[in-house]
Amino acid sequence: MNEFDFIRRLRKQTESRKRSPRVINGIGDDASVIREAGDRDLIITTDLLVEETDFYRDATPPALLGHKALAVSFSDVAAMGARPRWSMVSIGLPREIWQNDFKESFFAGYFALADQYGVTLVGGDISQSKDRIVIDSIVIGEVDTGGAVLRSTAQPGDQIFVTGTLGGAAAGLKLIEMGARVNQKSEVRSQESEGVGSPTAERGAVATGFHYDAETAEADAIERLLLRQLRPDPRVGWGIVLGQDRLATSMIDISDGLSSDLNHVCGQSSAGAIIDAASIPVDKEVSKLCGRRALDPLSLALHGGEDFELLFTVHPENVARLPKRVDSVAISHIGEIAGDLGVRISERSHVWELKPAGFEHFRQPE
Amino acid sequence: MNEFDFIRRLRKQTESRKRSPRVINGIGDDASVIREAGDRDLIITTDLLVEETDFYRDATPPALLGHKALAVSFSDVAAMGARPRWSMVSIGLPREIWQNDFKESFFAGYFALADQYGVTLVGGDISQSKDRIVIDSIVIGEVDTGGAVLRSTAQPGDQIFVTGTLGGAAAGLKLIEMGARVNQKSEVRSQESEGVGSPTAERGAVATGFHYDAETAEADAIERLLLRQLRPDPRVGWGIVLGQDRLATSMIDISDGLSSDLNHVCGQSSAGAIIDAASIPVDKEVSKLCGRRALDPLSLALHGGEDFELLFTVHPENVARLPKRVDSVAISHIGEIAGDLGVRISERSHVWELKPAGFEHFRQPE
Repeated sequence: MNEFDFIRRLRKQTESRKRSPRVINGIGDDASVIREAGDRDLIITTDLLVEETDFYRDATPPALLGHKALAVSFSDVAAMGARPRWSMVSIGLPREIWQNDFKESFFAGYFALADQYGVTLVGGDISQSKDRIVIDSIVIGEVDTGGAVLRSTAQPGDQIFVTGTLGGAAAGLKLIEMGARVNQKSEVRSQESEGVGSPTAERGAVATGFHYDAETAEADAIERLLLRQLRPDPRVGWGIVLGQDRLATSMIDISDGLSSDLNHVCGQSSAGAIIDAASIPVDKEVSKLCGRRALDPLSLALHGGEDFELLFTVHPENVARLPKRVDSVAISHIGEIAGDLGVRISERSHVWELKPAGFEHFRQPE
Repeated sequence: MNEFDFIRRLRKQTESRKRSPRVINGIGDDASVIREAGDRDLIITTDLLVEETDFYRDATPPALLGHKALAVSFSDVAAMGARPRWSMVSIGLPREIWQNDFKESFFAGYFALADQYGVTLVGGDISQSKDRIVIDSIVIGEVDTGGAVLRSTAQPGDQIFVTGTLGGAAAGLKLIEMGARVNQKSEVRSQESEGVGSPTAERGAVATGFHYDAETAEADAIERLLLRQLRPDPRVGWGIVLGQDRLATSMIDISDGLSSDLNHVCGQSSAGAIIDAASIPVDKEVSKLCGRRALDPLSLALHGGEDFELLFTVHPENVARLPKRVDSVAISHIGEIAGDLGVRISERSHVWELKPAGFEHFRQPE
């Protein structure tokens, strides 16, 4: 059983119980929806980040980890069409990490993002862990009553859009696994210009299909991809606009990967979809850096997770009302919801089934 | 810097920022208080449980862990005088734990307690951890607007009370560290009656001042103390009554230990306190099992944590209005809030300063 099956089972267990009538939407979406006493609905989400599963300590400056912990939860709130308002954070730290300046840097990054959206940290918990950092990020948002955008409400004929570009975060992760580190590019370059080279990175490049050298443009591209992984920008502005103006009929954030997340929307909406490979907004840096060898840019864009872009559907009549950009972020029209089941992708004259191939924590061996 | 200093600093950092006017009480209490759009205030709390810091896997049956994860957060909500309504849980599990029946048992224990109070699980997160279990428990409750009972509002002359009994959970932890295991008492007894003895437990007994033998009464007492540690009963009913009837002027749950938690109340209320040693409700099993050697029952009751009883203060005029029992749990009158600073305890004719000696995650070496 993978975690999606288990979550479905838990959802059934909670639905079979006497249920609070004020729970508008429980387990199984980006966030939960609870009716407030007044004219608002609360949106609440929690995201657990575990060292060596969700991040690598040596590749993740603490300030970026603080940013990311909050960003992933902001993304969930945005995916409900809601505005983030308050946050909490629970942290487990090994003793040696507690004693260095990790927590100061972590909260500097955390507060910088919180301040950007006027979100107040209202609480949390601190515990000691044996040897690995663990962070649980909780964000509470609000929408007008009934205004939350669910995953389960896409209708046949609805047009499918994504914000921004895809594949960058997965490429950034590959670069980290190859040994690339953020903000160390100048050091790497100066070594290479002295003929020392960067053996880890070069070995990785051969193995995974990446090519990069000492040229400035490529080093900048690498830095940007590393930051797509380490410092995601949640689409808070788009979430608020799509929710407030009732433009999206369904929405999810792309955390597991487009193929998985589109399958989540279709599965929960009892619908299918057809998307067009040529219209997938593949990150330009990814296209530049990937060869068509072990790593295919389109595969990264379809199956790579953690881009934290929004995938949403719009009734055909409302497509013209969509803004072109929000916070300078554009959107791409990638396909349409279908009445028959099955998620498909057309590539030139072929149509393939788009199976979920994104991230699972507990994938069974094939 | 211990975690209390760090939390105070974080609190100052959040207060120096532009703050949401709807945050009634932020960092530094058992839970946060947020004004709803209607006539209610939301109470929200998060508690992180990390394996080998907050529990031992081999001593903690998964169903009891599920119970305790929720119970500790219920206790925080009770300490605000609020009613728990909804919950979330984030879990990080090693792969081998995911594959066994841990999660089914965990949620059986979790749901049994949730159902007892009509609380609905509305969401959560699942991640893979490398080798240790980590759980973050989030509970959301409600009170009438302005009805949350804070730590910071005790007044000189207020009478101090605690629910239930103290010291049992700390004694249970000592027993676990000595090798005692819940529901294994019959096994231990049969070994001893065969003359094999229980070497671990006996060695522990000598070292820590516990005495127990094969007699049934003592085995039952041990089982009850183990359950005080592993299966705490949050004082949900008392919390609701004290909040609803506006009886408590301040409140905290005893999670760190009475000495620490009373110091928290006094520090945040800018007041002092005097309590009477003879009136501390020491758990009867603790008194029975502890010698006055390495382990003193009163010390366990004063400084041992995790009893999850409520410590609250009451205006003298309202003392007569207090119910004798709620859910069969009695209360004890242990002292009075003083106008001058300092927390003191009187024992026969002596008065001592009661320094916080409860649990800290990041205590500095003396």
